[in-house]
Amino acid sequence: MKFEKLVGEHFREKPSDCVVDSHALMVRGGYIKYVANGIFSSYMPLRRITKKIEQIIREEMDVIDGQEVQFPVVMPASLWEESGRYESIGKELMRFKDRNNSPLVLGMTHEEAAVQLVREYAHSYNNYPFMIYQIQTKFRDEARPRAGLIRVREFTMKDAYSFHTSQEDLEQYYDKCHKAYERIYERAGLPEVISVASDSGMMGGSISHEFMLLTPIGEDSIVICNECDYRANMEASECIVNNKKDEVSEELKLVHTPDIHTIEDVCKFLNTDESKSCKAVVYQRNHDDSYVVLFIRGDYEVNETKLTNYLGCDIHPAVITEECGLNAGYIGPYNLKGDFTVLFDRSLENTNNLSCGGNVEEYHYTGLDIARDIENVEFNDFAKIKEGGICPCCGKPAITISRGIEVGNIFQLGTKYTKSMNMTYTDSNGEAQHPIMGCYGIGVGRLAAAICEAHHDEYGPIWPMSVAPWQVHLCAVRADNAEVKAYADKLYEDLKAKGAEVMYDDRVVSAGVMFSDADLLGIPLRVIVSPRNMKQNIVEISSRDKSFSDSIPMDSACDKIIETINSFK
Amino acid sequence: MKFEKLVGEHFREKPSDCVVDSHALMVRGGYIKYVANGIFSSYMPLRRITKKIEQIIREEMDVIDGQEVQFPVVMPASLWEESGRYESIGKELMRFKDRNNSPLVLGMTHEEAAVQLVREYAHSYNNYPFMIYQIQTKFRDEARPRAGLIRVREFTMKDAYSFHTSQEDLEQYYDKCHKAYERIYERAGLPEVISVASDSGMMGGSISHEFMLLTPIGEDSIVICNECDYRANMEASECIVNNKKDEVSEELKLVHTPDIHTIEDVCKFLNTDESKSCKAVVYQRNHDDSYVVLFIRGDYEVNETKLTNYLGCDIHPAVITEECGLNAGYIGPYNLKGDFTVLFDRSLENTNNLSCGGNVEEYHYTGLDIARDIENVEFNDFAKIKEGGICPCCGKPAITISRGIEVGNIFQLGTKYTKSMNMTYTDSNGEAQHPIMGCYGIGVGRLAAAICEAHHDEYGPIWPMSVAPWQVHLCAVRADNAEVKAYADKLYEDLKAKGAEVMYDDRVVSAGVMFSDADLLGIPLRVIVSPRNMKQNIVEISSRDKSFSDSIPMDSACDKIIETINSFK
Repeated sequence: MKFEKLVGEHFREKPSDCVVDSHALMVRGGYIKYVANGIFSSYMPLRRITKKIEQIIREEMDVIDGQEVQFPVVMPASLWEESGRYESIGKELMRFKDRNNSPLVLGMTHEEAAVQLVREYAHSYNNYPFMIYQIQTKFRDEARPRAGLIRVREFTMKDAYSFHTSQEDLEQYYDKCHKAYERIYERAGLPEVISVASDSGMMGGSISHEFMLLTPIGEDSIVICNECDYRANMEASECIVNNKKDEVSEELKLVHTPDIHTIEDVCKFLNTDESKSCKAVVYQRNHDDSYVVLFIRGDYEVNETKLTNYLGCDIHPAVITEECGLNAGYIGPYNLKGDFTVLFDRSLENTNNLSCGGNVEEYHYTGLDIARDIENVEFNDFAKIKEGGICPCCGKPAITISRGIEVGNIFQLGTKYTKSMNMTYTDSNGEAQHPIMGCYGIGVGRLAAAICEAHHDEYGPIWPMSVAPWQVHLCAVRADNAEVKAYADKLYEDLKAKGAEVMYDDRVVSAGVMFSDADLLGIPLRVIVSPRNMKQNIVEISSRDKSFSDSIPMDSACDKIIETINSFK
Repeated sequence: MKFEKLVGEHFREKPSDCVVDSHALMVRGGYIKYVANGIFSSYMPLRRITKKIEQIIREEMDVIDGQEVQFPVVMPASLWEESGRYESIGKELMRFKDRNNSPLVLGMTHEEAAVQLVREYAHSYNNYPFMIYQIQTKFRDEARPRAGLIRVREFTMKDAYSFHTSQEDLEQYYDKCHKAYERIYERAGLPEVISVASDSGMMGGSISHEFMLLTPIGEDSIVICNECDYRANMEASECIVNNKKDEVSEELKLVHTPDIHTIEDVCKFLNTDESKSCKAVVYQRNHDDSYVVLFIRGDYEVNETKLTNYLGCDIHPAVITEECGLNAGYIGPYNLKGDFTVLFDRSLENTNNLSCGGNVEEYHYTGLDIARDIENVEFNDFAKIKEGGICPCCGKPAITISRGIEVGNIFQLGTKYTKSMNMTYTDSNGEAQHPIMGCYGIGVGRLAAAICEAHHDEYGPIWPMSVAPWQVHLCAVRADNAEVKAYADKLYEDLKAKGAEVMYDDRVVSAGVMFSDADLLGIPLRVIVSPRNMKQNIVEISSRDKSFSDSIPMDSACDKIIETINSFK
């Protein structure tokens, strides 16, 4: 491929609307083009990268006996009604109607389609286990697409579905797939990806893992224990708080706190620590706007995923109206009257001498002892774990929290879909059973962006050889020099003939322009033919990551370059 | 791959809802699964076939300097408003709105997306020519999906777009692409595909060709001249009629024709030939229901594509009401009064002594001489060419008409999209110009179905080696025999180790069941290991198309099979 023929826009400066490096570099280097919010077209360099990633994924799925199939992008709503998700999933699921007014959806995941494909096939236990997968476009009507290819609305995903006759068999396969994922990231140049326990969210099921690239620009908070192997998404991480009561419980006392609304101000006013306060956080259920009042220790935050899972429905931060019976800024657990769901986080267990809202305008209580003052309290885990917190696995206060990009996930789904969609097989005793499912996803474009995020410098991406759009960037510096041009032309043809993927820049431009364009294309090996080099009878070869550079004799350059490409594998 | 592990449903009998063979065989053999009207999932065998077809297409597009890109499936309506097609295309274009009420469409073709991708890039004539293509899912809300994968709503398509600075350059590239298409069909095992001139329809532009597989189940009528190279879709084929007037023109006379409505009945009643009648065919414009009355010689049919192109809008057969001023069954060109568009087909040129409607209930005219009796007549070509008709190219009456499946199309688009979407470049004189486009499509699934349609017998498809899901079908007949099993297992492993794609059937089932399953999978080479063969120290090898069968020595079987696979290429 000649550089001058490569279709795509290039920008010298970082576009103002790009907040993460991979987004900026992909726009600057002519990888992606904005089409609509969360929707991009890919130019050739990115398409070559995603094809290579897809092929790595495909090979590793085939190793674990996956059968590549293809589900539709557009599905009838009826299929999603069977599983109950047509109702339960929010606006992310794109719903519309065809010319005959039949309701359709755009696939954002394909559990329903997978069950539909195999439920008439897999009637006997002999058919099990099996795994089917596809690599296909998906659409998810995200409220807030961001960060280029990190969070989009339309994306290409590998999604795999396995079917089993026992939990043990699922777990064995789940482990196999976990290892296949590790190989995929390794091969794609991201061995640093870690797996963390995760929340199963809308997928259902219990055990699930996410594969995370740790990076400050990640959207997820990852909980890591420095003392043991514990790694989890904060959404799924248990928060343990060991309180010790003060020896003497003070009396409950109503205190005038004029013009004070936040827990911080209350603690400042009362000269106590936030950990000695009981904070109210109020939500409303999405479906009926009913109120949920959650009390939590003042220095902890609510983990809304845990709360949603506990309630079994979606929620949003409450709008506290005059009529609702709550005194915004003064809500406390003592003497709280009204028809609310009232919940207590475990961070309040075994506490006393707390300050809290007085449920009266401009008044707070001090001296709250929940066990003494409130009846029928049940504590549950709704809090976000904190830096330095207690590890739920080893019990040591060794938690650190990092940011991460999710680049894959695997779920043990159980029988959620096979039961609801009435898929059965006959077991060896002749009994009808629902198969147990697992599902396994990797977003291709996001993985490409994550690779770029992990491997770039200020000048451009540094693509690993395994996914690079081309293997060698051949620069003919001073291509207007006939000898340079002739030698470089021949080297280009020779390299191609030996199977190398070569980007050839023979434009008559300055070396500076040529090299900065090459930096943006991020090809791992660079070869420079120039008049000065030719005088010394050499060709310069260097790696994009600057880990090496070398001079090689002109007459053996082709073989040496091929050798170097192979050494990257 | 072991046959017993292959996921998919199999049926012994032809499903009752399948009217074409490829549809029936693909359902029976576990290639496709119905999901919704015109929407299918693919099982592994079909996915392997489509991947191979995609790879052939990709290689041939790369040969003609195509750059693989990817456009979105979901596009903003605004993009289609720019070209005017958001309004002009009917219900086939799937329109819907996202969570923010922004109108979106599902891509059914990507001219708009292609222009959007490159219009900020290709500002200089130096950037031209270039071609970009993708292989991507498309959705077209067809009114009548039919025949399995032949006409679906969701499909995978390769669509390519080329950009040029002159018509000559476009034409050169168009020819190159035409040749690339010929190579694609040749390599995919369909050398019999022919190209025909076609109507450009909603794509715009003038010159276009369709690639057709001639088969009785095709939806298109293909006009072929037996005397010259002329080949065209009937929609685009000129109809030439050489009339000779009777020597004496009779008088125009109103005749009572009670209870007679059709042109056949009129001619029978008057004892004349249909060719001596002037038939009225009435349409209404879709957008305002205004009437179009078309007169045509009684023995010709209207080509609605030509009429639509002439009118520049969509039409439908008229509903003739009492108020509209037309006398159904008695409409004629003489004394026709009312606010209609009146058109005359060329088949009426130079005719006399015709019968026609009297525009009065129960009356017809005889003796019509259009030139004499009707004022200001302009004749245009609106008729369908007929079997035995005159070739528009060589002028000989040598036309035959066949049915065909369209398996690809290429268009010279001109500047329709670059003008409407305001894409310009600066030419060598510094003037702004609109680039000239071509576009080039192939439906992958339909091509797979066409291959099956062309190459099958009553027992199953006969896949060409180049697109076959696997290369060798290894049957271990009597796999319960330990020696058979041991030898076949080893042969399976040896063949795989040498890179062959092997489907291995080691089920303990009858040879009949095994072979009929193999027939449905249509793998080009079959290898049979059996106790009887082993006694003779041989392995049977045969081709699915029955063109050869052979016995090969057991100890050299692997090499011989590999050799045979290669001989297919």
